Amino acid sequence: MTIAIVGGTGPEGSGLALRFARSGEAVIIGSRDAQRAAESAAELNKQVDGGTGVPAGAISGAENRAACESAEIVILTVPFAAHAETLKHIKPALRPGQILVDTTVPLAASIGGRATRTLGVWQGSAAEEAAELVPDGVTAVAAFHNTSAEVLQGDSPVDCDVIVCSDDKEAAKRVRNLARKIPGVRTLDGGKLENARIVEQITALLIGFNIRHKGHSGLRITGLPPTAYEL
Amino acid sequence: MTIAIVGGTGPEGSGLALRFARSGEAVIIGSRDAQRAAESAAELNKQVDGGTGVPAGAISGAENRAACESAEIVILTVPFAAHAETLKHIKPALRPGQILVDTTVPLAASIGGRATRTLGVWQGSAAEEAAELVPDGVTAVAAFHNTSAEVLQGDSPVDCDVIVCSDDKEAAKRVRNLARKIPGVRTLDGGKLENARIVEQITALLIGFNIRHKGHSGLRITGLPPTAYEL
Repeated sequence: MTIAIVGGTGPEGSGLALRFARSGEAVIIGSRDAQRAAESAAELNKQVDGGTGVPAGAISGAENRAACESAEIVILTVPFAAHAETLKHIKPALRPGQILVDTTVPLAASIGGRATRTLGVWQGSAAEEAAELVPDGVTAVAAFHNTSAEVLQGDSPVDCDVIVCSDDKEAAKRVRNLARKIPGVRTLDGGKLENARIVEQITALLIGFNIRHKGHSGLRITGLPPTAYEL
Repeated sequence: MTIAIVGGTGPEGSGLALRFARSGEAVIIGSRDAQRAAESAAELNKQVDGGTGVPAGAISGAENRAACESAEIVILTVPFAAHAETLKHIKPALRPGQILVDTTVPLAASIGGRATRTLGVWQGSAAEEAAELVPDGVTAVAAFHNTSAEVLQGDSPVDCDVIVCSDDKEAAKRVRNLARKIPGVRTLDGGKLENARIVEQITALLIGFNIRHKGHSGLRITGLPPTAYEL
């Protein structure tokens, strides 16, 4: 499977690239600047082994739109200020059958406000905005909002549940199947894409904890049967 | 300490009453109907021991407004449809120095919609609405949104972190101190009262998990130092 990470030179994108490459997937880091993408990919390739000893997938770099062309799954990890613009830019490269995974949180920090507050998005959430901006046949899935970029960039298991929201249950399962490859991650069906409204907001709360306590917080859902985490 | 639980005959209020009585606090169950409050209190008193062997506080019952008169902490556990009306009703009994703990989630179910969706509240959250409706000198604190009523009503430890939001740090500490008395509960400083917007919404997400998986979900925050849970 080939995974494109649009805005993949940022901390969340780099962390996901590293983890997916370690699980054997081919990853293309996307950036507005192809040269920067290539440099970031070269740097990340050096860290892929991470002591796992598992044959790793390779990380390559490309301009954002080009990165999307050969990918089955496109993961969007840009700041919210660049969200709509980036989606419009990559749109010509997207085609039916692809999955667009939106990790974006509409933090007020993206327009100079606080990272502990969010902006109202007309569609309800960044993920629902994304669903409106992709071509017909491309499925929007919301995931990875609450996984700490710092933890993803490290070598330790990720002590966080990934809540996946989509109106397409099969696409959600494919993304859950991908997320489960990150050591430590459990995944949950978060229901319809509209529930991304809540999952996105949680990140602002976690950022508040991080600021107050100098941590890299995540969350675990308790009280559910083990089958909730199975596909 | 005396704790009044307004709307305390409901599942969340009964569960909190039971847990606080077990930790030795005096609890007054409030209801619109004094007779119903008394019956509920009598029923709960039978369950207080819960195998703990600890000398338990007594649970009594009173009409909602009367329940507030002698309490240091008033906990509001009414459905959102009764939220503003109940606050206006108890207002004459509230006095400076009291803490009003709002546990209310503005679920769409309160006006015939889904329990997995929330309503927009003009002030931002039910807790901020409560802050507007209490007399000067009464401090609003948001807490206990994510603790399952069914789990609270049982005898097992509560596998959930209680996120406490308030603009008054001392009041937040008092409520965290109370919440910590529930076995299993850890508490976190959720920051300002405005953050109740997020903590309230999380409940709708948890209800979705409960529906899909027949569980009684809660949440734990990960990745923070142990000091984050200390007072």
